[in-house]
Amino acid sequence: MSQRTKIKALLESGKTDIDVTVKGWVRTFRNNQFIALNDGSTNNTLQVIVDFENTDPTLLKRITTGAAISATGKLVASVGKGQSVEVKATTIEILGDSDPEKYPLQPKKHSLEFLREIAHLRFRTNTFGAVFRVRNTLAFAVHQFFQERGFIYLHTPIITASDAEGAGETFHVTNFDIANPPKTESGEIDYKQDFFGRSTNLTVSGQLEGELGAMGMSDIYTFGPTFRAENSNTTRHLAEFWMIEPEMAFYDAKDNADLAEALLKYVITYALDKNKDDIEFLTQRLLEEEKQKPQNERSEMTLIEKLQFCLANDFERLTYTEAIDILKDSTPNKKKKFQYLVEGWGTDLQSEHERYLVEKHFKKPVILTDYPKEIKSFYMRQNDDGKTVAAMDILFPGIGEIVGGSQREERLDRLEQRMDEIGIPKDELWWYLDTRRFGGCPHAGFGLGFERLVLFVTGMGNIRDVIPFPRFPKNAEF
Amino acid sequence: MSQRTKIKALLESGKTDIDVTVKGWVRTFRNNQFIALNDGSTNNTLQVIVDFENTDPTLLKRITTGAAISATGKLVASVGKGQSVEVKATTIEILGDSDPEKYPLQPKKHSLEFLREIAHLRFRTNTFGAVFRVRNTLAFAVHQFFQERGFIYLHTPIITASDAEGAGETFHVTNFDIANPPKTESGEIDYKQDFFGRSTNLTVSGQLEGELGAMGMSDIYTFGPTFRAENSNTTRHLAEFWMIEPEMAFYDAKDNADLAEALLKYVITYALDKNKDDIEFLTQRLLEEEKQKPQNERSEMTLIEKLQFCLANDFERLTYTEAIDILKDSTPNKKKKFQYLVEGWGTDLQSEHERYLVEKHFKKPVILTDYPKEIKSFYMRQNDDGKTVAAMDILFPGIGEIVGGSQREERLDRLEQRMDEIGIPKDELWWYLDTRRFGGCPHAGFGLGFERLVLFVTGMGNIRDVIPFPRFPKNAEF
Repeated sequence: MSQRTKIKALLESGKTDIDVTVKGWVRTFRNNQFIALNDGSTNNTLQVIVDFENTDPTLLKRITTGAAISATGKLVASVGKGQSVEVKATTIEILGDSDPEKYPLQPKKHSLEFLREIAHLRFRTNTFGAVFRVRNTLAFAVHQFFQERGFIYLHTPIITASDAEGAGETFHVTNFDIANPPKTESGEIDYKQDFFGRSTNLTVSGQLEGELGAMGMSDIYTFGPTFRAENSNTTRHLAEFWMIEPEMAFYDAKDNADLAEALLKYVITYALDKNKDDIEFLTQRLLEEEKQKPQNERSEMTLIEKLQFCLANDFERLTYTEAIDILKDSTPNKKKKFQYLVEGWGTDLQSEHERYLVEKHFKKPVILTDYPKEIKSFYMRQNDDGKTVAAMDILFPGIGEIVGGSQREERLDRLEQRMDEIGIPKDELWWYLDTRRFGGCPHAGFGLGFERLVLFVTGMGNIRDVIPFPRFPKNAEF
Repeated sequence: MSQRTKIKALLESGKTDIDVTVKGWVRTFRNNQFIALNDGSTNNTLQVIVDFENTDPTLLKRITTGAAISATGKLVASVGKGQSVEVKATTIEILGDSDPEKYPLQPKKHSLEFLREIAHLRFRTNTFGAVFRVRNTLAFAVHQFFQERGFIYLHTPIITASDAEGAGETFHVTNFDIANPPKTESGEIDYKQDFFGRSTNLTVSGQLEGELGAMGMSDIYTFGPTFRAENSNTTRHLAEFWMIEPEMAFYDAKDNADLAEALLKYVITYALDKNKDDIEFLTQRLLEEEKQKPQNERSEMTLIEKLQFCLANDFERLTYTEAIDILKDSTPNKKKKFQYLVEGWGTDLQSEHERYLVEKHFKKPVILTDYPKEIKSFYMRQNDDGKTVAAMDILFPGIGEIVGGSQREERLDRLEQRMDEIGIPKDELWWYLDTRRFGGCPHAGFGLGFERLVLFVTGMGNIRDVIPFPRFPKNAEF
């Protein structure tokens, strides 16, 4: 194929008076003369000027919104406003037509809901181009952060036989004919005949396997898909989402919180640096969107300000117990404005409480630690008070919980006791307990919900708009 | 926690006479004095010297193989052979005991089969430490390669409703109670009541969705898990494995092959550079292993030589048709040594034929192109001869197919015709066809089986030994 230059490279090159070939999709074509061309490498379009007097009219007619074209010509300084350079085309080739009557993406504003229905085409819009470039950068920044620190990227299994974590409802995985599964003599499903010789499901977390890696490699992280078969039709939940789960040997609870805060600041910095144009676009988008809202519901800060504010300030660290005290004394609690009133120690925090702490009280990200053991998982390290565990949740403005983690219980007797208390079968997790039997050590880890991070950095309102093809109840299209 | 230095950093620092704290797992403890400590950061152990005369004998007894310890002391130049520095410990702390009678990993050589059964502990062995560090490096190198070239990392869905690709048997995903799924009045499974409102399965490839991304973002790649419910108990197949699938707009078949060759060379170079110690260790391991074989079955090159050879030479490019001619005339074909004799054009190549081309005839990686359309997928671009498609397989010595790809059929009429011919339901893939209706363009892509790449670079013999927790028929342990 002929050498092609991407629009981003071309706009950043600072060169003019060179011959170039660009390829991409027509966004608009004005006056039979001005093509706004986008190739996905940047949010910016490149203006391609057609010499319409010397161009076959049948070709001109095929330059329509959505058409894929190749344009060759000279890159020159632009006299028009809004762009530094443009291409004076000598040849235009139509690579793929787009019937303007039928093309679903008209050159006008479409709703995000409509675009979700044509998720296969929304990559071609400004908003989703920006979202998925930012998502890409955040994903790479995660890897870069951990690689710089000597962590090992570990692929933990997606199909698992253990559902012992109790992190949520799981999807079954089977290669049975569901209409006619084999049964035992006593009439039960005969999972011995299933592909894996047992009942299996999709993982809800790679943590337990991640810990196994950490108990030999010191520092590991996962970055893979996880699943919840929960009927949650919210703007914050997906049935299939990506998680980052680092596990670190020889880390205590404070090391864990330090690492999580450093990670979040690193990746946000990285995106602000690498995707400046996209985040500026998304900032404007959000401002426009918020104009629809009453004044008192609009954000106090723009998207960029919010991201920069996050970087400039230490996250507030306090215990669950301290948070309960603040919430009990808070105005919305006293005036009974909370849907769930905070009456005492021990109850789980609701989204409204987390938002109050983050958005009203501290006005910055909050790291909440040392939750009551009853509302947290069996593997969290028990504190000396006998009541709490060394858990840590990080709460972000507008998002709520973005990170959940803990120091892990490394003491075999304590761990087994807790498993017995809440009825987790120890024999199924023999391998997990082995790492406490043989050279266990203090260790910690956390999970970062990747889509929630993307939601925060892009300022989008619905988690279905930050993953290319969202999976949620009654939807597995594409 | 007290500041700790990882052994890799310490060995590379070149410093001596500094105070350090190291933490890790005891590999061996000789003469009540010499601890070989490993922390997973490197294959090398650090010698920690215990002042046994001034150490509590009960503590000395707890320094056993597998125990996790923390050692603080002075880093000094080593007088012994095999190491440049060692730590003269002033304090040793036992973080986690390991009963030497019960610890499964004795300080002796274990078979790979045995270690597979204790995959939760095999991270602590030299071989698997090296394998998983190399795997980590290769994964990061993949990202780095694509990021340098402006590709967008795209997370394509794991749960899909379409099985139209026909790439292999799929696993069903459901949240039905399999013993009692809801049925319609006519007695069939009522998938409308399933979580996604339809029958779903685990993806066999992210390609089709990847193409959608490329048709707006230009260049994308996936890197995620894929699944096959095939009862293949071989050293080359897994039920769950990771694939890298780039899709590029405006690429033709040659661009595609160029990119794949560049990618493979880049990641191998990266691993040779970053994991020199590990690959040297694995080279020795393979030499030892091959000593068990008769002389004529041993490799002509060592592992490192094989990797370097791959980098130093252009991959051999030829068409399927040319390959058939070579195979028909080959000695093993004429002497009927092949299990499947090559009699004419049109049959698929068997592993023995691929190996002959790569290992005997060309003695280097081979890119085979332009296969008969009957043995390839519907989405591959039809060549003008009416018989072949613009497919590309890359064959590696000892591995066989490591990459499979093609230029994609961008012409709607040709694509629909082929789908009709082989009975692929067009309505299910409406979104795929849409990208040919609206601004389609020449494009190409390929899939790289990540575990096969790791297999090649580590010289391991069984694919179950290059992924932390392998999934295969009758096995979903851990």
